[in-house]
Amino acid sequence: MKLEDKIEKANVLLEALPYIKRFSGKSVVIKYGGSIMFDEVLKKQFANDIVLLKYVGIHPIIIHGGGKEISKWMQRVGKEAVFIDGLRFTDLETMEITEMVLSGKINNEIVSLINEAGGQAVGLSGKDGNLFTAERVKSKKNQDLGFVGDIKDVDISLLETLSNKGFIPIISSVGKNKAHETLNMNADHVAQAVATAFNAMKLIYLTDVQGLQINGELQSLLSIDEAIQLLTHEDVKEGMLPKLTCACDAIKSGVDRVHIINGTIPHATLLELFTDTGIGTMIEGKNP
Amino acid sequence: MKLEDKIEKANVLLEALPYIKRFSGKSVVIKYGGSIMFDEVLKKQFANDIVLLKYVGIHPIIIHGGGKEISKWMQRVGKEAVFIDGLRFTDLETMEITEMVLSGKINNEIVSLINEAGGQAVGLSGKDGNLFTAERVKSKKNQDLGFVGDIKDVDISLLETLSNKGFIPIISSVGKNKAHETLNMNADHVAQAVATAFNAMKLIYLTDVQGLQINGELQSLLSIDEAIQLLTHEDVKEGMLPKLTCACDAIKSGVDRVHIINGTIPHATLLELFTDTGIGTMIEGKNP
Amino acid sequence: MKLEDKIEKANVLLEALPYIKRFSGKSVVIKYGGSIMFDEVLKKQFANDIVLLKYVGIHPIIIHGGGKEISKWMQRVGKEAVFIDGLRFTDLETMEITEMVLSGKINNEIVSLINEAGGQAVGLSGKDGNLFTAERVKSKKNQDLGFVGDIKDVDISLLETLSNKGFIPIISSVGKNKAHETLNMNADHVAQAVATAFNAMKLIYLTDVQGLQINGELQSLLSIDEAIQLLTHEDVKEGMLPKLTCACDAIKSGVDRVHIINGTIPHATLLELFTDTGIGTMIEGKNP
Amino acid sequence: MKLEDKIEKANVLLEALPYIKRFSGKSVVIKYGGSIMFDEVLKKQFANDIVLLKYVGIHPIIIHGGGKEISKWMQRVGKEAVFIDGLRFTDLETMEITEMVLSGKINNEIVSLINEAGGQAVGLSGKDGNLFTAERVKSKKNQDLGFVGDIKDVDISLLETLSNKGFIPIISSVGKNKAHETLNMNADHVAQAVATAFNAMKLIYLTDVQGLQINGELQSLLSIDEAIQLLTHEDVKEGMLPKLTCACDAIKSGVDRVHIINGTIPHATLLELFTDTGIGTMIEGKNP
Amino acid sequence: MKLEDKIEKANVLLEALPYIKRFSGKSVVIKYGGSIMFDEVLKKQFANDIVLLKYVGIHPIIIHGGGKEISKWMQRVGKEAVFIDGLRFTDLETMEITEMVLSGKINNEIVSLINEAGGQAVGLSGKDGNLFTAERVKSKKNQDLGFVGDIKDVDISLLETLSNKGFIPIISSVGKNKAHETLNMNADHVAQAVATAFNAMKLIYLTDVQGLQINGELQSLLSIDEAIQLLTHEDVKEGMLPKLTCACDAIKSGVDRVHIINGTIPHATLLELFTDTGIGTMIEGKNP
Amino acid sequence: MKLEDKIEKANVLLEALPYIKRFSGKSVVIKYGGSIMFDEVLKKQFANDIVLLKYVGIHPIIIHGGGKEISKWMQRVGKEAVFIDGLRFTDLETMEITEMVLSGKINNEIVSLINEAGGQAVGLSGKDGNLFTAERVKSKKNQDLGFVGDIKDVDISLLETLSNKGFIPIISSVGKNKAHETLNMNADHVAQAVATAFNAMKLIYLTDVQGLQINGELQSLLSIDEAIQLLTHEDVKEGMLPKLTCACDAIKSGVDRVHIINGTIPHATLLELFTDTGIGTMIEGKNP
Repeated sequence: MKLEDKIEKANVLLEALPYIKRFSGKSVVIKYGGSIMFDEVLKKQFANDIVLLKYVGIHPIIIHGGGKEISKWMQRVGKEAVFIDGLRFTDLETMEITEMVLSGKINNEIVSLINEAGGQAVGLSGKDGNLFTAERVKSKKNQDLGFVGDIKDVDISLLETLSNKGFIPIISSVGKNKAHETLNMNADHVAQAVATAFNAMKLIYLTDVQGLQINGELQSLLSIDEAIQLLTHEDVKEGMLPKLTCACDAIKSGVDRVHIINGTIPHATLLELFTDTGIGTMIEGKNP
Repeated sequence: MKLEDKIEKANVLLEALPYIKRFSGKSVVIKYGGSIMFDEVLKKQFANDIVLLKYVGIHPIIIHGGGKEISKWMQRVGKEAVFIDGLRFTDLETMEITEMVLSGKINNEIVSLINEAGGQAVGLSGKDGNLFTAERVKSKKNQDLGFVGDIKDVDISLLETLSNKGFIPIISSVGKNKAHETLNMNADHVAQAVATAFNAMKLIYLTDVQGLQINGELQSLLSIDEAIQLLTHEDVKEGMLPKLTCACDAIKSGVDRVHIINGTIPHATLLELFTDTGIGTMIEGKNP
Repeated sequence: MKLEDKIEKANVLLEALPYIKRFSGKSVVIKYGGSIMFDEVLKKQFANDIVLLKYVGIHPIIIHGGGKEISKWMQRVGKEAVFIDGLRFTDLETMEITEMVLSGKINNEIVSLINEAGGQAVGLSGKDGNLFTAERVKSKKNQDLGFVGDIKDVDISLLETLSNKGFIPIISSVGKNKAHETLNMNADHVAQAVATAFNAMKLIYLTDVQGLQINGELQSLLSIDEAIQLLTHEDVKEGMLPKLTCACDAIKSGVDRVHIINGTIPHATLLELFTDTGIGTMIEGKNP
Repeated sequence: MKLEDKIEKANVLLEALPYIKRFSGKSVVIKYGGSIMFDEVLKKQFANDIVLLKYVGIHPIIIHGGGKEISKWMQRVGKEAVFIDGLRFTDLETMEITEMVLSGKINNEIVSLINEAGGQAVGLSGKDGNLFTAERVKSKKNQDLGFVGDIKDVDISLLETLSNKGFIPIISSVGKNKAHETLNMNADHVAQAVATAFNAMKLIYLTDVQGLQINGELQSLLSIDEAIQLLTHEDVKEGMLPKLTCACDAIKSGVDRVHIINGTIPHATLLELFTDTGIGTMIEGKNP
Repeated sequence: MKLEDKIEKANVLLEALPYIKRFSGKSVVIKYGGSIMFDEVLKKQFANDIVLLKYVGIHPIIIHGGGKEISKWMQRVGKEAVFIDGLRFTDLETMEITEMVLSGKINNEIVSLINEAGGQAVGLSGKDGNLFTAERVKSKKNQDLGFVGDIKDVDISLLETLSNKGFIPIISSVGKNKAHETLNMNADHVAQAVATAFNAMKLIYLTDVQGLQINGELQSLLSIDEAIQLLTHEDVKEGMLPKLTCACDAIKSGVDRVHIINGTIPHATLLELFTDTGIGTMIEGKNP
Repeated sequence: MKLEDKIEKANVLLEALPYIKRFSGKSVVIKYGGSIMFDEVLKKQFANDIVLLKYVGIHPIIIHGGGKEISKWMQRVGKEAVFIDGLRFTDLETMEITEMVLSGKINNEIVSLINEAGGQAVGLSGKDGNLFTAERVKSKKNQDLGFVGDIKDVDISLLETLSNKGFIPIISSVGKNKAHETLNMNADHVAQAVATAFNAMKLIYLTDVQGLQINGELQSLLSIDEAIQLLTHEDVKEGMLPKLTCACDAIKSGVDRVHIINGTIPHATLLELFTDTGIGTMIEGKNP
């Protein structure tokens, strides 16, 4: 490499300095999901991004679900998936498979990826250290959904213990209720609840879309008031509505900024954190 | 309850005091395995025993395998188990299922059981926090076994972090090698390696037999020298040989005492720790 | 011992687990007094109970008086005891003997008993580390009582230092006023003041009676309001009235529960703490 | 006061600075005994000296006996003192009185004096926190001495806990053996053992004489070799021989310097520590 | 020295004990200035006073300016001093010399003096650790003063770090504004701002006069209300007015007491802190 | 900026990750000197490099001299510089100016630069916190050099205190001897002594040349043995000889690697630390 190129690289490092300073010692909760989970290159890039964050003094916490992989394994054991109002009806056997897939497969893969990139990841579910307490929920039309839950309480003591000692928590969206039933939860909502409980500086949703699009136009920056108004907009559909709802809830409970970004862009997390314009949609509170 | 009965109960509590004092602040590594894993009553008793240990100031660390459950799930997905020299040949798909069963199912069940009993368990595999480093092994006849490994190194920093903060680590016998391949390991050996690395006071193997039987007679107490001699005895077979070998290795590397006990006896762990005669077979070092 | 009996003992240990969990890390102040102080068997049982509490994570603090022993030693040196309104008139010489008996004899005996049972007791009076500050009091009819005082202020820094490092404080009811005069104090009241200052979870009075009896019937449970009303009941006499008054004061200042129990029942303290129904009379606050 | 006089006082303060720097953060064990214990003015001066030491960053630990006061109280209860080879024969009743006098009277008086001077003293005996372990001893002619002991082991954890938190330990020469019998010990020897165990910078014996006199001449400074030779000198008698023996033992076990000084000189401790020439006799090790 | 004289010295030490107790662990900010800076004897006495304070547990922080020395060096490099409304007009070159003199000469001299006296001084300016943030000011008549600033913000983290580890901060009155221009500041005001930010117990101005004189009479004690009224008194002129203004500001922002004393009196700081009547003028708040 | 360019920048950041991991938590001592001190652009780049190091978890410590600036100011005050054997003869007045320039001007400029770049720099000389102790030295021909010293001892407690709390120490090469005389020292040697005392991972000399050139060829990598041999090579002259000598001394006393690099290359420090080939000359020990 020529000296000029090396110097150019040093310049790039220094461009990141203002962002490193701003986020140093802060926590960032990242909902990991979508196509990024199935692309070998993107996965490794993501893992490297996370390890870099940790080494420059930021505390990342990763939350993940994994609907597609659950469906695949249900099929393998010859069990048909049933959906009610778009939510997976989860009988005991489905829950068993769900937990094996989320906590025993996807979670371990993320841990391995990050450790391979040089981090110290620790895989968790909401059961570990009584991290989450959930409650069973019904569908909108009040139909039984089986072992589907909604997160009600987060005990961050395990996360603090790990984060302060240099470990990176990777959390699957499985938990338990007070009756100690295992429940499947919406990972977007889990990410919001963890970000709120941990008083995170940022909550980032990695998705397969560029961000929130209204009338075909990317909304780069939304105030919390604007975001709340858009919750009822017709362009805010299925996948986006729960994320936007969670984003608004997070801001209302004290998270500074929420980002909905395209995880298929290489190093999307770094781009969001370490460039001035960022990518995707940012929703911010009144005193961000 | 009559007052006399209450007083009698208080007397029983006080009989445990000398044992509580002796083990206070010490670590005990327990290999959890065998029929106890499939009996609802024994499982709950075990969980209560572990929580009691933690609350009286002892630091339990649980290691588990789960061969039977792996076979069951392999069957469910229509995959035949292949054994070479008594060891499961583990191709990539088998490893995938193994990890889902061990880390995603059995491990979570133990975490749930202990948390239901009032503890703060955290489920781990050897990947979490780079806890284990393993190496691939071949069969005795030098045949390829696929993703089967032997534990080579234990980094206890995650275990210390958790144990000191009141959490109970539950560890599945899955790890990785330096090439970041996921490997299945022998849980007896993992338990020995963890006990050695953590400088545990005791290593307890919960089995389905009363202990080591030679010529039809239970060996209650063996010196390390006696135990080593018995390694080649004809009555020390399959299931017992690896445990006795691990026991000897543990003693040689500094663990004070190793116990091979019958996990199907209710509260076997408490009986071992809190009664004078103990149960099963105890192997002890020269300066226990 | 047969295996069944051992298992039964393990079951008894586990019955204590919910109580151990509830009280773990909490402080319990125990007023030690009455016949229990003169019975060799009860004394040793008491000491064992206290050491067990410490080892299961509870922080006991013991307060004691010792009127009978003071009278005995006054007689030995040929000094007549004088009582005014039921309170010992305490001239300088009486105070000298009182302090020698309480701090130099009874206190040391309790320290020895507990250390013999395996604890790390430290004997204190209100002078040590300026633990108490008292004021001289007069009799109800405003007669001079000499060096008799009432506790006004407790500085818990010495108690915290000792308790956090694993020591068990044993405190005699002798202190000083701001003029540095040594004063004799009522141990029931000292216990209440220490429990209040230390924000103890429980205050236990060990007495010679079964608890508070009204119209010949044991009052197992009293709300603070009921207890206050009973202060003027004709069945609440001499020995009981100051204890009930102190109990009400303790509850009013934030102690969760106060117990008046029969110390002559073997292991009375353990029975109170570790059985569901408890023994004697319990007075509890509005949000216990 | 005139300004010149004030300035002169400031100069005196500053003369102490080199000594304060030298001893800052170090421990000094002081054997308190002799006439100083019975003179109201000297007692208060002593207490002020000790508090000043604590406030300028030195950690004083006080050891005391109290033979004369024991004799006085034995007489009061009509019990005759018996001496064998100059040592008090100590039957159970004598031991009871001895403990009451040492731990219940003299110790409390010293605590009060120091607290009145503004310190935070805590009275201890060898029983508290299992501070000492002793063994019974016989007379030189092998006669039974009853409950007389010699200190064998010092557990400094209680002393460290108190000293580091700003408290001043005051220790009576009463302890226990492994059979939990209460034993009376020689305070000079206790002081030496505590100084050795605590790795004190200085051990100071407050006596009624100017120091060690040989052929009528004060020995201001002795090397350890000179001191050992003088142990058999005819001028080293009764009271002095045990002190000189203890001094030599202390130096041999690592204490830097031992002083035998006249406690009846006002502020003897301060004079020793804070003036260049010191007072009395100093014995020093080879690398003081 | 005769024994009586030594004893008299010990008595003097003990007279300081009440003051040492009162100020132990507290911070005292001292504005060092005036003739004391140019007298070899006074300088050394001052240094010894400061080291003594540190060793007896008080945390001194020294602030200094140095106008005369600046003028001298300006003259040496042939630069004329210009004053506007009594304030030095500070062009870039003047600022350069000012900083060299204050931070490179006077500050180092004070550090050396204190270290020579046995302390651990650390020289700082307002730039170090971003200690101060200032703003440019104009003259009263709104004329440009060049690089002259007024302190607006104090970040005490560096001072706390150093003070807690036994170091003595020596601070020159040079700082920077948000544009990172170096500014010269009034040291009296800097001392007030540091005392306020550090929540100091005392702020002491060392001057060349006896204190505040009104109608030729020394004002020994002023309440804050009296002091405020005197701000407009005709006898409060040049040098005194800014000090009295700063004193009032300090009291209003929470400093307990401010002293304006004559630094040319030997050991003025010790006399103020360690004698009952003190010297000079004391202004105290409503609840000192 | 186009997305592709942003992604490219993220890739550059990640290339630094292996270096960040390797140096995380380690100390690097940097001798700052040469033309870099006089170039506004290079100075700012240097400051940014240092702040980036601190934020990614590396602990930089900066040492500087400043011969040219000293000469300039001597000239300004009309004082002629005298050199003996190439060393500045330093009379008292020269020393005064030297200290003002090094500690009052250059040091403050570096502090300002780094703070402006977002760091928390603290300027020190060897006097602060008794950081260095030096001894006077003579010229090679044994001529008096006045106040010129050689560093003999480094007390790192102040550096540790500051470095652990996030501050960046900037140290001028001025110190004192035991007689408290201010001495001027060679900054290359100071850097070596500090690197050795602090057990730094790296010592970097920023110079005006590309590194060590032998027979016109840059020596990229030298073993310690090779470096020692080159000490007598004719191409190792004036400026380089002391640096190479210091480098060898540093390696011999335990520093892992020493670098002699060209400070005029933009971001020379970053290039050295964060690229694989590095720049300039590296001397490494036997087990680097």
